[in-house]
Amino acid sequence: MDKQNHLGNVRVVLSHTSHPGNIGAAARAMKTMGLRHLYLINPRHFPDPQADAMAAGADDILRNAVVCSSIDEALQGVVFTVAMTARLRDISIEVKTPREAMPELLQQAAQQPVAMLFGTEMSGLTNEEMGKAQVLVNIPTNPDFSSLNVAAAVQVMSYELSAAAQDFVPRVQEVQPASHEQVEGYFAHLEKVLFEIGFFTTQNPSRLMQRLRRLYARARPEAEEINILRGILSVTTEYNARLKKRYSEEHSDVQEH
Amino acid sequence: MDKQNHLGNVRVVLSHTSHPGNIGAAARAMKTMGLRHLYLINPRHFPDPQADAMAAGADDILRNAVVCSSIDEALQGVVFTVAMTARLRDISIEVKTPREAMPELLQQAAQQPVAMLFGTEMSGLTNEEMGKAQVLVNIPTNPDFSSLNVAAAVQVMSYELSAAAQDFVPRVQEVQPASHEQVEGYFAHLEKVLFEIGFFTTQNPSRLMQRLRRLYARARPEAEEINILRGILSVTTEYNARLKKRYSEEHSDVQEH
Repeated sequence: MDKQNHLGNVRVVLSHTSHPGNIGAAARAMKTMGLRHLYLINPRHFPDPQADAMAAGADDILRNAVVCSSIDEALQGVVFTVAMTARLRDISIEVKTPREAMPELLQQAAQQPVAMLFGTEMSGLTNEEMGKAQVLVNIPTNPDFSSLNVAAAVQVMSYELSAAAQDFVPRVQEVQPASHEQVEGYFAHLEKVLFEIGFFTTQNPSRLMQRLRRLYARARPEAEEINILRGILSVTTEYNARLKKRYSEEHSDVQEH
Repeated sequence: MDKQNHLGNVRVVLSHTSHPGNIGAAARAMKTMGLRHLYLINPRHFPDPQADAMAAGADDILRNAVVCSSIDEALQGVVFTVAMTARLRDISIEVKTPREAMPELLQQAAQQPVAMLFGTEMSGLTNEEMGKAQVLVNIPTNPDFSSLNVAAAVQVMSYELSAAAQDFVPRVQEVQPASHEQVEGYFAHLEKVLFEIGFFTTQNPSRLMQRLRRLYARARPEAEEINILRGILSVTTEYNARLKKRYSEEHSDVQEH
């Protein structure tokens, strides 16, 4: 496994970018550091001459960019995602520095696709988008001026990734991490069952799902574990169905008596 | 000595920048990382609305930027300069990575002004400009695409500097490093004397001065040592003058006889 293969497994995902110049500058930043896979979620203007101008020779990255209409589409097949945040939140999902996070991203990239996720120029990523990541990364900035340009953030992250790749030794990985869509399938299933059993009647569903996402983000479930978790959900539903059936039978008995 | 003081001693020097947007983007990059002193050597357009637009809130950096007409003016008072190079040259001046160079820059910045020197968009720094630095820094890039934007290079360097500052412990420095103008004064003196003694008749002066610059860049002379070296040069000139005087006296003796 050589460095090029690792970097070839890394996607840069830009969500809802407003200024096409930033897309071009991000492509240039990526290419200088040996990255090539750009994914764009609903860019406001793309393709665009300003993107081409700012790419300054990285036009192959733009030409091969994958334009997506949702984050799930952009993360299809991905097993590990780091999401950028400008804020240091008081939440339980891990917030790491680029230097801490990049060796882990590379480790995962040795085997399967991984992603670095960047938000919009004005407001960054939404909570929902960050909920799709396993790790949040904050680039430490001047507390009085943390306004890092999105392409500059791509430059810093790509640089750190490239620096980490210089002296990277892959660990033997015995686990088979679940893919983005397997994990999302689990969350959709979980949410459905939690509605089914009436768990959400006294709770705010979206806030609670965010907390559950964070818990599982820390756990990094394997594909096999996702199957087990979904098995539990299925059995729960079946058990409920049996209970209901029995109740309705008994109820009809009662009525018969 | 706290981190802010160290970063307050760091100048970012941009030489002959063509595009004012890059000046603005560099100012923004600096400010996000806690740097504030921008020096511009003969910028093509400055001030300029494009610079303001790209600064995106770092307009105080632009307003306080020092516009210089020469590199010596920009490095006045500086005791340690790192210069960017895109090429890994086969020359004897040290070429370091940002991660290697930034702790040393900070160490020097604990006491006196230091500089990071960036060249033009098209051709980088001249050999003459690089000769003014003690250390060359190369940001490792994709060998097939090393075209790092100048503001992106400022971002990476400022980020590395800020990261180095996080866990920086100043060493006690007993030496008093010579300032830029003391070192330049020595080189001017040396060159003059080397002409005087006829050393350059069989050598290429500018190439030879570059080699001497590299040697002294590695040595990092103290102010006191510069005084000693210049003392030697002065004595050399005086000795030569005495020899010439004696020769002309003897020669006139010969003519008289």
